[in-house]
Amino acid sequence: MSEPTIHEEQITSTGPHRDRPNLRSYFGTPEVDRSAHPVDPWKWIETEPPTEKLGVVESIFSLGNGYIGIRGTPEEGRDAFMNGTYINGFHETWDIRHAEDAYGLARVGQSIINAPDAKTIRIYVDDEPLRVSTADLFFYERSLDFRKGTLNRSLEWRTPSGKKVLIDFTRMVSFSDRHLGIEIIDLVLPEDHAPVVLSSQILNRQDGQDEFGSTQDPDRWVASVNMPDDSVNTTFDPRQAEDFANRVLLPLLQVDEGETVKLSYRTAHSGMTLAVGATHELSTKNDFHITSTSTADQAKVEYQVSAVPGEPIRLVKFFTYHDSRRMSAQELLDRVDRTLRRAMEHGPEKYLEQQEKITGDFWKHADVEIPGQPEVQQAVRWNLFQLFQNSLRAEDLGIAAKGVTGSGYSGHYFWDTEIYVMPFLTYTMPQVARNNLRFRYQMLPKARERAVELDQKGALYPWRTINGEEASAYYAAGTAQYHIDADIAYATMQYARATGDSDFLFREGLDILVETARLWEDLGFFGKDGKLHIHGVTGPDEYTTVVNDNLFTNVMARYNMRIAAEWVEQLQRVDDESFQAMVRRVGLQPEEIGRWKRAASAMFIPFDEKMGIHPQDAHFLEREIWNKDDAQPKRPLLLHYHPLTIYRYQVIKQADVVLALFLRGVEFTEELKRADFDYYDPLTTGDSSLSAVVQCILAAELGYHNVAMPLFQQALYVDLCNLHGNSADGLHIASCGGIWSALVFGFGGYRDYDGRLTIDPALPEEWEGLKYRLHIRGEHVLVEMDHEQVTLSMVSCDEDDEPLLFEVWGKEVELTDQAPVTVQKG
Amino acid sequence: MSEPTIHEEQITSTGPHRDRPNLRSYFGTPEVDRSAHPVDPWKWIETEPPTEKLGVVESIFSLGNGYIGIRGTPEEGRDAFMNGTYINGFHETWDIRHAEDAYGLARVGQSIINAPDAKTIRIYVDDEPLRVSTADLFFYERSLDFRKGTLNRSLEWRTPSGKKVLIDFTRMVSFSDRHLGIEIIDLVLPEDHAPVVLSSQILNRQDGQDEFGSTQDPDRWVASVNMPDDSVNTTFDPRQAEDFANRVLLPLLQVDEGETVKLSYRTAHSGMTLAVGATHELSTKNDFHITSTSTADQAKVEYQVSAVPGEPIRLVKFFTYHDSRRMSAQELLDRVDRTLRRAMEHGPEKYLEQQEKITGDFWKHADVEIPGQPEVQQAVRWNLFQLFQNSLRAEDLGIAAKGVTGSGYSGHYFWDTEIYVMPFLTYTMPQVARNNLRFRYQMLPKARERAVELDQKGALYPWRTINGEEASAYYAAGTAQYHIDADIAYATMQYARATGDSDFLFREGLDILVETARLWEDLGFFGKDGKLHIHGVTGPDEYTTVVNDNLFTNVMARYNMRIAAEWVEQLQRVDDESFQAMVRRVGLQPEEIGRWKRAASAMFIPFDEKMGIHPQDAHFLEREIWNKDDAQPKRPLLLHYHPLTIYRYQVIKQADVVLALFLRGVEFTEELKRADFDYYDPLTTGDSSLSAVVQCILAAELGYHNVAMPLFQQALYVDLCNLHGNSADGLHIASCGGIWSALVFGFGGYRDYDGRLTIDPALPEEWEGLKYRLHIRGEHVLVEMDHEQVTLSMVSCDEDDEPLLFEVWGKEVELTDQAPVTVQKG
Repeated sequence: MSEPTIHEEQITSTGPHRDRPNLRSYFGTPEVDRSAHPVDPWKWIETEPPTEKLGVVESIFSLGNGYIGIRGTPEEGRDAFMNGTYINGFHETWDIRHAEDAYGLARVGQSIINAPDAKTIRIYVDDEPLRVSTADLFFYERSLDFRKGTLNRSLEWRTPSGKKVLIDFTRMVSFSDRHLGIEIIDLVLPEDHAPVVLSSQILNRQDGQDEFGSTQDPDRWVASVNMPDDSVNTTFDPRQAEDFANRVLLPLLQVDEGETVKLSYRTAHSGMTLAVGATHELSTKNDFHITSTSTADQAKVEYQVSAVPGEPIRLVKFFTYHDSRRMSAQELLDRVDRTLRRAMEHGPEKYLEQQEKITGDFWKHADVEIPGQPEVQQAVRWNLFQLFQNSLRAEDLGIAAKGVTGSGYSGHYFWDTEIYVMPFLTYTMPQVARNNLRFRYQMLPKARERAVELDQKGALYPWRTINGEEASAYYAAGTAQYHIDADIAYATMQYARATGDSDFLFREGLDILVETARLWEDLGFFGKDGKLHIHGVTGPDEYTTVVNDNLFTNVMARYNMRIAAEWVEQLQRVDDESFQAMVRRVGLQPEEIGRWKRAASAMFIPFDEKMGIHPQDAHFLEREIWNKDDAQPKRPLLLHYHPLTIYRYQVIKQADVVLALFLRGVEFTEELKRADFDYYDPLTTGDSSLSAVVQCILAAELGYHNVAMPLFQQALYVDLCNLHGNSADGLHIASCGGIWSALVFGFGGYRDYDGRLTIDPALPEEWEGLKYRLHIRGEHVLVEMDHEQVTLSMVSCDEDDEPLLFEVWGKEVELTDQAPVTVQKG
Repeated sequence: MSEPTIHEEQITSTGPHRDRPNLRSYFGTPEVDRSAHPVDPWKWIETEPPTEKLGVVESIFSLGNGYIGIRGTPEEGRDAFMNGTYINGFHETWDIRHAEDAYGLARVGQSIINAPDAKTIRIYVDDEPLRVSTADLFFYERSLDFRKGTLNRSLEWRTPSGKKVLIDFTRMVSFSDRHLGIEIIDLVLPEDHAPVVLSSQILNRQDGQDEFGSTQDPDRWVASVNMPDDSVNTTFDPRQAEDFANRVLLPLLQVDEGETVKLSYRTAHSGMTLAVGATHELSTKNDFHITSTSTADQAKVEYQVSAVPGEPIRLVKFFTYHDSRRMSAQELLDRVDRTLRRAMEHGPEKYLEQQEKITGDFWKHADVEIPGQPEVQQAVRWNLFQLFQNSLRAEDLGIAAKGVTGSGYSGHYFWDTEIYVMPFLTYTMPQVARNNLRFRYQMLPKARERAVELDQKGALYPWRTINGEEASAYYAAGTAQYHIDADIAYATMQYARATGDSDFLFREGLDILVETARLWEDLGFFGKDGKLHIHGVTGPDEYTTVVNDNLFTNVMARYNMRIAAEWVEQLQRVDDESFQAMVRRVGLQPEEIGRWKRAASAMFIPFDEKMGIHPQDAHFLEREIWNKDDAQPKRPLLLHYHPLTIYRYQVIKQADVVLALFLRGVEFTEELKRADFDYYDPLTTGDSSLSAVVQCILAAELGYHNVAMPLFQQALYVDLCNLHGNSADGLHIASCGGIWSALVFGFGGYRDYDGRLTIDPALPEEWEGLKYRLHIRGEHVLVEMDHEQVTLSMVSCDEDDEPLLFEVWGKEVELTDQAPVTVQKG
């Protein structure tokens, strides 16, 4: 793959004692070409058709609602890196063939499928196809509208015969109707007559239907697009998805009835079913003629319009997807019918209104404002909008590492959701947060089975999965990341405390806490020192694997066991009936609670007295300092060095100790946080996009503003500037979540350790202020800060609301919906 | 796979402080059914046709010469588990597909091929096929003759129509002609007339030609043999070979000319070529008729004989194999012609004579005698004969883990050769030992490339390979075993010192020492303690992987660097011209020698002061004691527990520290050896067949006779009694070598540390004596011992021989060819 740009300059050292080189993969100051991408606080705009890095641009202009995702490829086809459409969780399975097998390795590979593309509407004027990369365009603008929730494109095309054609495209994936997408094309020839053809299609691209209607020929395919910098398919990149050798989507029923077409499929191995359908409405005073056809891999409705000068043509296309693990094709086709019929009844305007309304509500509760920083504001809103549109309607499904924007990481769900996305959801979209936790709850039976397979008690969540089974084929950086259990428990607790949703906690969440606590208690063992040790696990940092007493894991496991004990006892106190039901569900034995407490109390937390820091694991500090690429850094390391080589050194892919310092900051003194950060930051390459945001939060907390801001910028533009070189595979959704965390927890200084709400602003000097919104225990809280003061205001949602207690700069304040509260600094 | 038998009884504890359970996989007292396998000091015999565990029996009755290997399946076909024929090094390659890829992982899979089977001669009497498993047999005996070097079978068959048929089979793979095999069938009907058909064939079985002439149908195939206990193909077993999906042997030229048939092939991916041919001579006074045919996968010469009573029929079949990495099929067919023509000229008797002569010479120099122990004697000779026939003519090839007896471990070469087989070869067949080292020398360029790929200096030998490239797909238990470098250096040094072959050492061996020393010096790093540490490697024990400062590795690496420095300096002193040539070959820099010495001196040797033992690695003793299967042991662990689980515990697959105590015993006090052995022996499951022999040697040295003898028995019968349950995949050749080591180094007490020859007998009480032979610096030495004395005698091979100095029971003696020397005990 194309490497991230590396500048040899070193970023400013962070602490006082920097006798070692700074290993951070420094990606330079991200720069956006503002002539092509003008600043707009509510849109991401391009004013020229993209000519390179098509894959990146497609990811940036993706639309989705958490269930359906459509990459930002043009309606008319052709100029594309990856014409991807993804239905969250719609996946194929395959037998993982290990080059050398062993007991308990992951068996079932799972890959998100490129669902049939219902977006394509080819456009011909005078039988000349529109293709933006070669067309003579007098005007072009595309924008992702953060307020309307639509992707819009306008262009003025001079055809080869010199006719002027004005076209506006409007595309949306509905937030109100989970299964619906809409495209609107408004086309007019102001001055000329011409035959105009709009060929609306549904194309099964997964099985190789290319732009030319034939089975995909890799050479022609590559030749047909301009993607020198997107050619990520070199020898290997473990972060990409699997290719299939054989047909994936087996065609079932096809239907074409007038302007409505429908296709349905079953996946070859996972047995999932999918139906996709589209219906149309053409509005014009021009004469036109309609034909429709459908075959296994392609359905078409073609409008042949005799356009006269100045007479507008509007084509509305409604499309819909329904999938299932078990349902028959006919059942799904019936659902498709219902969705399409309802859509035709309502008409597109109603959906556009609803879209804007829902999006507006989102911003009301989730916007983060940075006054006087329009460029930052634009990029921040782009990040938040991605979070919104990749999670809103996930519902009974997870939120994948790439959301629904690409096939990177095979569409798998990781800890990314719980640690990087869930804080945002919990505080701005609590219902969506709850959905995600319920999804994890549904996964408990498989996690229990996996624990048994690995000879452990309780439940062991898969490191990566779609269907609940472990899909990580490389256990050292996969299955060994047992911390996934604690991450899910952490997110459960954070959600429950922030929302006060005891209903979920007591009926489902507690089961997660109990089963994960059991795993830790069983996995740990008492060493000769009387301490509880956890051996043979991998922490967040994948540049050291299968270690003993990873600090992050031990800290999180301790927390996991403590909250399990605490809330089991709490439930017993407050609601015996629910308690008994829970006991029955998880088969709780009375002595278990004491065991978790003892284990938590005895947890070994590695600490090096001499250096005054926490080793990342028991033996991390015994490793050699990285000395491999002083002259010419090769990043990311994982593409240039054998794992054994990387593992031998004190070199870090992503925040590990530092993440513990953030998530469980209340357990560490500021002095230790500073010592640890000073030690680890220079060792952290940031080769993972999960790193910068966490380092940023800690840097902000510690007052290292000259470190925090470049890290924030790296995360803010990771996709917009393709800083990791792989945004073509899909967006870094965790990093988007991290942007919110960096703003709220980092610069905004908000913390919620164990239910105590504190605000210690760390506003960057160059910013005049910051405004963010939090949904806490049913109340909407607005936090506004500048360099002198913090103002809190509450918009109450219910009647019997209790006041919220905050500590701002250490001063306790009580917030009610009666009046805002302002706290002065110092 | 079928598990090894496990008895719950614990073997006697070894040391004084056994507060932990003994984890050793105790396989019980091996028992041979003596009614079916009578004791014979020079033969392994079966008196009944095997009805179960066919695969094991086939391995036990394998014939080979180190180049060609033929499993002990019957000439007439049918009753077989795996009709295998192996040509050492004749392999197919394939792209290793890693379920999750990473930089530097092994890329080229290599698998030994089941070469076309030239052994089959189907026999029909009255058109009834002979099939031993169902035939009405009045007599049956098969024997592997250790002195004649042949496999013989005699049977008296009563056909369904009641005719008596006497058949003698003689089979040999020639020791004198590397490419030749011979079969002789002597058949007579003493009392009856009958049409007799002898259908001699060459069959390409690799590509699925089964017993029925059709492409292999797994169900019929399974149904056709009786192999309930051989069904090792369960879900997985990492120790088995790869299956190919497509055709492996692409047919080239086929020839049938009268009684001669020839087939030739090219492998689909590795591009190796192979020609196989057979010619025949039928001697009988009966009338007969010959037909021959050849197709891509089958060539046939059929003799239709009208047998009259008492008139003997003798069919002699000569067959030959020639393979190459590059040569054309025609060239190989020409070689086949020459071999066959010469064989016909000489006739079978001459080859049988030569075979007996060469085998006799072998025993003269390699026999180990255990007077008064006929059963042990028989099994010992079987083991030594396997060593002999699997190595003699390997020549420019390696000696695979399974020799040429099966496809287990894909026919790969491992450290097994250097550490387990080379001591035997060095002391009994020095020319063969030299060949193997020269084979490793030829591999140096690829080992240098691999070091570069892994960002290291010097050379890194592949953990497992056929063609010199790393083929270990699981790096943690493969590539990470860097100790392979030191193992090869060790074998080089042991050979050079024992033989005095300075020619090899100075022209080639030293290059190995230098390049491996470089690797160690570069891989190691100086820690804060001023010591040289080696991190991230795996020692011999594969139940703990990727550890820091593995004791075995550090001890062996230190030795490796020391001998490199020592012998480079020695060469510089004695032969400047050769020295300069070596300097040019390896680009030696003057300061390197000093660097190796410093690194060796600073080598960190982990030692636990409190426990007074050497930890297996820096952190081994921090692990938990195995507690997983107290009630019901599941062995081998690797088939029942996830690697992560196994790695967390103090549980050992095979001798690791203990192996270092043996190989570099001179560096450890007896007290420490005892402490280490006492600690590690109970932790050692012996799930690897490489373990028992090493544990046995140390137990013998330490006087733990009640431990040494059961371990010896386990190794002695590992294949003869299928103790590890997988002898069907091929013999455990390293264990055969270990038997010799256990006798000579273990009970025989011989050591050769750094050229000092010592004998400290550890004769088992139940044995009256022991005789073994050593080839030392050109002299043949006979060591005879009983419980009172040791007698050494020398048969000189050259004129100007120098006396050999021995220390027997600590007493120095000088041995010349003038007279034997006897040393009394005490």
